[in-house]
Parts: sequence; structure tokens; C-alpha cells
Amino acid sequence: MSDPIRVGLLGLGTVGQGVVRVLQRNAEEIARRAGRPIVISRASARDPNKARDCDLSQVAIEADPMRVVTADDVDLVVELIGGETPAFVLIGEAIRRGKPVVTANKALVAERGNELFELARGAGTMIAYEAAVAGGIPIIKSIREGLAANRVLSVVGIINGTCNYILTQMSLRGIDFGTALTEAQQLGYAEADPTFDVEGVDAAHKLTILASIAFGIPLAFERVACEGIARIQSQDIELAKALGYRIKHLGVAKRGMDGVELRVQPTLIADDQLLAKVDGVLNAIVVHGDAVGRTGYYGRGAGGEATASAVIADLVDAVRSLDTPPQHRVPYLAFQPDAIAPMEVLPLEKIESAYYLRVCVADEPGVLRSITSILAELDISVEAIIQKEPRAAEDAVVAIITSVVQEARFNEACARIEALPSVRSGFSRLRVEHFDS
Amino acid sequence: MSDPIRVGLLGLGTVGQGVVRVLQRNAEEIARRAGRPIVISRASARDPNKARDCDLSQVAIEADPMRVVTADDVDLVVELIGGETPAFVLIGEAIRRGKPVVTANKALVAERGNELFELARGAGTMIAYEAAVAGGIPIIKSIREGLAANRVLSVVGIINGTCNYILTQMSLRGIDFGTALTEAQQLGYAEADPTFDVEGVDAAHKLTILASIAFGIPLAFERVACEGIARIQSQDIELAKALGYRIKHLGVAKRGMDGVELRVQPTLIADDQLLAKVDGVLNAIVVHGDAVGRTGYYGRGAGGEATASAVIADLVDAVRSLDTPPQHRVPYLAFQPDAIAPMEVLPLEKIESAYYLRVCVADEPGVLRSITSILAELDISVEAIIQKEPRAAEDAVVAIITSVVQEARFNEACARIEALPSVRSGFSRLRVEHFDS
Repeated sequence: MSDPIRVGLLGLGTVGQGVVRVLQRNAEEIARRAGRPIVISRASARDPNKARDCDLSQVAIEADPMRVVTADDVDLVVELIGGETPAFVLIGEAIRRGKPVVTANKALVAERGNELFELARGAGTMIAYEAAVAGGIPIIKSIREGLAANRVLSVVGIINGTCNYILTQMSLRGIDFGTALTEAQQLGYAEADPTFDVEGVDAAHKLTILASIAFGIPLAFERVACEGIARIQSQDIELAKALGYRIKHLGVAKRGMDGVELRVQPTLIADDQLLAKVDGVLNAIVVHGDAVGRTGYYGRGAGGEATASAVIADLVDAVRSLDTPPQHRVPYLAFQPDAIAPMEVLPLEKIESAYYLRVCVADEPGVLRSITSILAELDISVEAIIQKEPRAAEDAVVAIITSVVQEARFNEACARIEALPSVRSGFSRLRVEHFDS
Repeated sequence: MSDPIRVGLLGLGTVGQGVVRVLQRNAEEIARRAGRPIVISRASARDPNKARDCDLSQVAIEADPMRVVTADDVDLVVELIGGETPAFVLIGEAIRRGKPVVTANKALVAERGNELFELARGAGTMIAYEAAVAGGIPIIKSIREGLAANRVLSVVGIINGTCNYILTQMSLRGIDFGTALTEAQQLGYAEADPTFDVEGVDAAHKLTILASIAFGIPLAFERVACEGIARIQSQDIELAKALGYRIKHLGVAKRGMDGVELRVQPTLIADDQLLAKVDGVLNAIVVHGDAVGRTGYYGRGAGGEATASAVIADLVDAVRSLDTPPQHRVPYLAFQPDAIAPMEVLPLEKIESAYYLRVCVADEPGVLRSITSILAELDISVEAIIQKEPRAAEDAVVAIITSVVQEARFNEACARIEALPSVRSGFSRLRVEHFDS
């Protein structure tokens, strides 16, 4: 067996410690697969002396990550610092030195991946990023290589575990968003500052990457329509249930006649769909290819060792590809760099879907007729409706599932319904995602 | 872009036609991924003149598949004939000529793969077989590469679409096995001779392959314990439902303290598990790795274009790896050839699991006490029990879910229960698969 490959690890947080543990624990099996041992020679951490849940006795620890990147005894760099600064500079330096890079940095890949891959291409080296999307699920490899025969029609997924955990708790226990968020923070499933997760930014980063490898388009984070889950109320979850649906925070990348949809939104899914049954911190992704039909992938989307699993899979790939000419490697974004071409991203107004609409109305005759008349005038059918009996002194609540309609037309309907004198302030609308076939 | 790679296609059945259609329809996207066009130059078929659902105008058709293998204008061979003869000889000849081979032939890989891979290794060429397991689901790639960091603890899957279709119909409509099989044959979901599918042989072939790449052991088809679904009765499905379970035909490869379990059996799964919800002709596989936890994969396990999707994914991989030294390729069976080592395969008697037991008993006092006494004496707990009220002149039916017990001990319990004077002939037992965590 050849000499060990020596890895420089930037970042010793949860994932970094997971990488150290799994590489040590499974050293023999990993070497049997990779054909040579993979060892961590150096690592960086802001506080080198902090106690950590892994054995670092054979690892030189640096406070300055650049010293890891430039060290002679580092053949390959794993970047687990996250964020743009200093990750971009560190990866750039590794690339210039011809050292392959494995990263779990979804923000960096989604926002500056086009630049990074161009740099790497120029230097003839690799950047691998399986861990950036859906933790331990090998979804990048599955789409990029496993489904290479297909014209990908759509990628739909639950790709933020924090949102899924919160929505699952709200659904199971009837608690409100704020309570569920606080609990998630206490359990470590949500950050102290949860903005990135609950506002959908994290999911939008991941969707950006999935859309690029699915459709062969450049990474276009700024084009993803992004909405979080903060406005979801318990009553929406209950009404959706009564109508046969679950509310999930979905990333959707879909190919249409006139362009692609790229959106991250809380969405209703019929409760007999497998995605509707993916609960807690699990992630799941359904890819629709023209040849294969729908294939689904689920697993832990976060956590130290689950993410480490993806990082190390990339390491094994990288070890195999060392000294391999670039044309023999899998292209960074699934398609050969010269074959990547932008596609029109549809504005939300042009996207068609069914809708869930919840309206609070005064408990008086004719209200339902007014609402359904507006819908009918705009050629929107009511596919399902539920009205809860008002309790004493309360307004009545009506929830409707509509037929498939272009958002612009549905906006018009909503504006007219909201303007009705008997409609109260509680008004909510969500997309419904249908999986035909 | 480089010259096209020229493929010789052996077999123009459903999958062969699917390969032709998808390669033509998605020619541009596939070339954008692979870096060069992939075209079919020659194909073989027993009846070259038969009408087929694809455009063969640019393809030279041969009656003799060996002429395709040896043709100068064939760079790479796709074998879709199935079975051992003449597939083994044809693939052997392609390998000797240094032509990479892509095959969907699960029987051949499971039963003679060790020989074939050794031949290929000697010749420095490739054999790829993603399409041999679970149709279009990229499960070989996911386990072999995507989960390379993990010590794989188990692989559990619904890997025969015919069995799953039949069991789903029995469950949904209360029909018996014979009726469901006849319908499946009429719909093309079961062969005229359904033995391979319903007796579990096809699933055992697939499980053999999955176990090998999961554990790094040689292919050992003859060691897989194999049982089909013909003895499953409607009442078992109903009783299982009442106890909160579904009956699925599962392939199970599991690592234990003393060896590995390799078995294909109809099995009860709790109805809240995702596998329990995979219905019809879908396949689904759950892989448990020590780092990643459980990841799941589902999709169409058969069908022309779904299987073609996997064949073409292998083609794209093979095109990339042409002229790549063998040490830079993914090993055939996930582990480097020199690192593959056999493990003890546990005899069924040593395997532990919970059990479902259905007993027909005379409707008289003390019967239930006799049964539960036998179980208690053997230290087997009753986790759940259901007894249906006998109709007039009928015997009573009791169904029990036991605690986890070694099969040898459960056999002893069954023998003693069957010998009870009040136990009638209707006696059935099935394993229960628990997914803890």
C-alpha cells in the first residue's frame, strides 16, 4: 500500500472533530477502500488548547489556518471553517499550490463557487463539496454521477434540518413557532442566531448548488426566491392536516417551458407522499429525471459524524484522483465547465402551482360566496375547502386548496379577497407542491 | 469535444431499447456531462428484424453478439442479455480485448463476479454494474463511494419490485397471493415463469452484491438464505396490520459480533418506518453506517428507462476512466481487490430477531395459556398479541409479536407449540425487522 495521504484540517468544530474521529476509528476500512491510508497531519483552530472530543495527539495544531494550507506535510486541505472570510482566501491559496480541497462550506460554494471552480480549473486541481448539501446523504454524487443519463426535471427537498425539526414539533404537539424555536435552540438543533436557518438562507445556498448540478447552469444564489418559516402558525398546520397535507420547508428547483424555478418556501405536500413523512432533523430530496422517474434520498442532514461521512467520501475520491488528468475527473458542477450555460430563472409571478389560502372572516351570511365568486371569476377552482365553526365571539376561519394557477393571477385573487369588508386580518397563503406520477 | 465513444449493445429487449432511446433523446446533456458524445454503433438481437420502440437507423444490428464484442468500431460493451450463458463468454472476450463492460446482469455478477473481476483486473479494464441492483437508484455508487467513510452495519432493502407489487396489492385489496401474481403477470410486472422473483432468487442476487460492497467480502451468493413470498396469506397481512406492521419482502445484510447475516425473507416492519410505506414496484434500500447513521434510497427498481438510467451512468463513468490507470479507479467491489476478505456468514439458527407467529387453535379454554407458557419457559416475551373471535365452527386465530430471540430458540418454541393438541394446521412464522434509532 502507498504512503499515507496527509490532510490539513481547517476548523476543529463539531464536524472537524467528527472527521478526526471517523478517520481514526475506520482507518483500516477507509484505507482498504482508498488504496492508501488517509491521516490528518495538521489542523487549525482558533483556540488550539481547547478540550475536544477526539484524539489529536498525532496532529500538529495551528492557530493560523494559513500555516496549515502552506505546510509541506499537507497534501490536501479540508475546509470546515464556514462563511466567506477567511475561507475563500485559504481555499484560493490551497488551489494555487495545487492542493485539492474538500469543503463543507455551502455559503461559499453557492455564492463564490463559480470563481473558485474557475481558479481550480486553471490550476488543474479539485474542489469537492459533497458535505455542503444534506450532510451525510450522497446527493451531490447521486445527481452528478448516478443520474448522469437524465434530463433532470426537478429537484425538491427538505434541506434544512432546523426548519424541519421546528415544523415537525409544531405539527406533533401543536406548539407555536416561537416555542418550537426556543426548544430547538436548547437542544442544539438551532443556532443562537437562527436567522440563516429559519429565514431560508441556508436552504437557498443548498438549493443553488443542487440546481446547478441538475440543470448545468452557473451557481446563481442571488436568483433563488427565499422565504423562511417564521410566519407559519399552528392553525395553518392544523388546517393543512385536516385537508390531508403537511407543511414542509421545501427547496424547489424545477425546469419549465420558459425557464427554471428556484425557490425555498414553506409548502404543503399531500400526506401520502414520502417527503411528508420525513420528520425531525432528517433531510430528504426527491429528484425527477426523465429516464429514471423519481428517486428519493434521505438521511441526517447535519451533525458531526454524518457530515464527516460526506467529507471523508470526498477525501477518498480525491485520493483516487490525485495525478489524474482533469478531463478524467467528474466536473465540479456535473457538466463540463465549457458546457455550463445559464437558463432563464422565472420570476415568482410566472410560476404555477396550487395554493393553500387561509382567510379569517366575520361570521355572517354571504362571505363564502364572495370569496368563491372572486376565485371563480379568475378561473381558479376550489379543490378542497374547510371551514371551522367559529367559537363564541370569534371570526370564522376558511381554508381552501386551489387548482394550479399562475402566481400573478393568484395575487390578484388575494388582493380582491383581502379587500372584502368581511375579511379580517388573519390571512395566509402557501404553495402546494403536487407530485404527479 | 473529443470523438464519440462507440458502444456495442448486447440485447435489444426492454432495457436495451431504453438505453437506445435515452442516449438519443438526451445526447446533448449526456455529452455535456461526459465530455464526449456516446453513440451506439452496433447492437445484437436474436431477431434483428423485429419492430422495436427506438430508432436503430444508425446502428448495425447483428444476430451474433460476439460479432458486436469483437467489432473494431466498438470501444465499450453493454451486456443486457442476462443469465450466465452466453453472457459470461461475451464479457470475458470483451475484457480480453481491453474493452470496458457495463452490465445489468445481477445473476452473473452475483454468481460469477469474483471470476469476472479477477479477469478484468488482469486485463486492466473495467466492469460496471450499477443497473444490476435496484434499477435506476444509484445504490451501488452511493454505498461504494458516497458512504466510503463508514463501517457499514447493515443494508436492508425492498429489492424485488415483483414481490413488492404483489404484497402491496394483497395488502390494499385483501386478495390472495395467486390472484395478485396472475394480475402482476397480466400487467407485465411478473414474468410468465415468476420463480426467480417470487422465490427470492433475484433479490438474493442483488443482496449478494450489496453485501459484498458494504462489508468488503467476496461475492457469496450460495451463502444467502433465501425465501420467497408464496406462503404469505392474506390473513397474515391483515393480522400484521392490526399489530401495526406491514409485510415486505426484504433483503437483509447485517454485521454482527460473530459474522454477517445474509438473508432474503418476507418480514414484518413497523408501519411508521419509511420502508413500510414503499409500495408497488418501487425499490428502497436503507443503509446503516457507523458515521452517517441511516440513509435511505428509493425509486423504480425496474423498467426500460429506469434501468437504462443506471446503464448510462456507468457508461459516463467508464468514458471518463478510459486510459486511467486502474489504481485511480473505484474498485469493482468498493474495496481494493487485495483487501477483500471473507467473513463468517451466520447460519440462520444463530440469527436474532423478533418474530411474528400466527397459530390456529381450537376454540377452547387454556389454549392461550399453553402457548404463552411455552414462550415464557424459553424466555421469549410476548410484545404484542391479537386474537380474533372465531366465526361459527371455525378455529380461533392468534397472532403474536415476540421479543428478540435467537432463531434456534424460537424453532424450539414453535416445535413445542405445534405439538400442542389444540393447535391446528394453520401455523405461520415470519421475522420482524426493528429499526432502532
